[in-house]
Amino acid sequence: MKVADDKNRNLKKAAEMIRKLSNQGSEIIILPEMFNCPYEDTKFREYAETANGPTITSLREIASELKVHIIAGSIPEKTEKGIYNTSFTINPKGKIIGRHRKIHLFDINIPGKITFKESDTLLPGERPTIVKINKIKVGIGICYDIRFPELSRIMTLKGAQILAFPGAFSTVTGPAHWKTLIRARAIDNQVFVVAVSPARNIQAEYIAYGHSMIADPWGSIIYEAGADETIKTLEIDPSQIKKIRERLPVLENRRPQLYQKYL
Amino acid sequence: MKVADDKNRNLKKAAEMIRKLSNQGSEIIILPEMFNCPYEDTKFREYAETANGPTITSLREIASELKVHIIAGSIPEKTEKGIYNTSFTINPKGKIIGRHRKIHLFDINIPGKITFKESDTLLPGERPTIVKINKIKVGIGICYDIRFPELSRIMTLKGAQILAFPGAFSTVTGPAHWKTLIRARAIDNQVFVVAVSPARNIQAEYIAYGHSMIADPWGSIIYEAGADETIKTLEIDPSQIKKIRERLPVLENRRPQLYQKYL
Repeated sequence: MKVADDKNRNLKKAAEMIRKLSNQGSEIIILPEMFNCPYEDTKFREYAETANGPTITSLREIASELKVHIIAGSIPEKTEKGIYNTSFTINPKGKIIGRHRKIHLFDINIPGKITFKESDTLLPGERPTIVKINKIKVGIGICYDIRFPELSRIMTLKGAQILAFPGAFSTVTGPAHWKTLIRARAIDNQVFVVAVSPARNIQAEYIAYGHSMIADPWGSIIYEAGADETIKTLEIDPSQIKKIRERLPVLENRRPQLYQKYL
Repeated sequence: MKVADDKNRNLKKAAEMIRKLSNQGSEIIILPEMFNCPYEDTKFREYAETANGPTITSLREIASELKVHIIAGSIPEKTEKGIYNTSFTINPKGKIIGRHRKIHLFDINIPGKITFKESDTLLPGERPTIVKINKIKVGIGICYDIRFPELSRIMTLKGAQILAFPGAFSTVTGPAHWKTLIRARAIDNQVFVVAVSPARNIQAEYIAYGHSMIADPWGSIIYEAGADETIKTLEIDPSQIKKIRERLPVLENRRPQLYQKYL
């Protein structure tokens, strides 16, 4: 979705898109990073809400009305300690069943191209997050979290079959790294990787790359969006994971005791 | 290089190619995995040699004659314990300065397409390998080792600026994974990654993918060979690593204490 400056407009847009996806038969719906707030560090404080604020409350109502799971991209989450970049997961009863706080805060400084320092305004999460959706375990990371192979590995070893990354790569890092990282996390871990970006908004201060996509456990891209707003319902078959791991037993062939000696 | 059945022919071919590369100005020369032996598990025992055998001895002579470093792809190395898939590194004095034994043994079983089980005939290496070449630290892995992000990370944290992977991906896994893995290890670790494959030999039982390539620390492919035999001299600038790490401080932004809790 294309994120606007107006928070209410963003919530309305998200609700509309969720409704359409549910009509198409989607059972797990994933929103992009910072879907209710422009991705600008000066805006995070102003747009921040607690889990009881209007954003998550409205999504809980929609989830229970439509009987869908929603992995709610991320929002700036207000807490007593400070603000986190947080992804809430909501089940079809409207209950919050997961809360991932972005572990790796995004600091970048490419003069003249892109400068951003999340750690100026945000606090980092302290634990990996895995939610159980029906019989599937879904690991959740946010954007920059995908750059750290350690986190995807941890989630995989804890049983995640799908890794979901709401993320807003830029138009500099997106073309250079987004697809390769998504495919690599899928290949390394032989899991599905779903990465969901805001649509490109050339009026925004920070312009997201777009190109939401899904890689299967062989690392093939089975869907890739363009830069513009779009929705897509896709059926995936978790039994593919077992088949690929039998053929190429990468996880069995790991040498954890050796790694521990040197890491 | 295209590896033939005849070991002496392979040694001659390697020597010729090294000579040409040295004439072009190459200072560090990297050969492919199993450059002296067809990549077949039934052949490893027959072709195996110790470090004092004809293969490494001849390369030591060439290295000291031409005053080059040679990362000698890999050979089946005979020891008292058994056979390893081993990459020797030789300096311009003809001295062996590194010995990497493949840590992750390659087991694959895609019925009708490719079946291979290195662990039937080979022993696994037990430690990461980093050699110092002039002022540059080079981490060495062999083929399947590239699938394990842990090893590339270990070598990077130990200071490797170049990761060299002699490797013989197949014509099944090559098109699917080779380039993505090479680029991902470069992007994750902000290092150069050099991957050197045997040329495609359609008469061989195991057909290597070819496509030797180099990724820079931004993950861009700066050279990619085709499937056929070829040599290439490329100049790289290690100061690129520092620049990219300043702009996007991925390694600084790691959360090692958090990983240790969960890994």
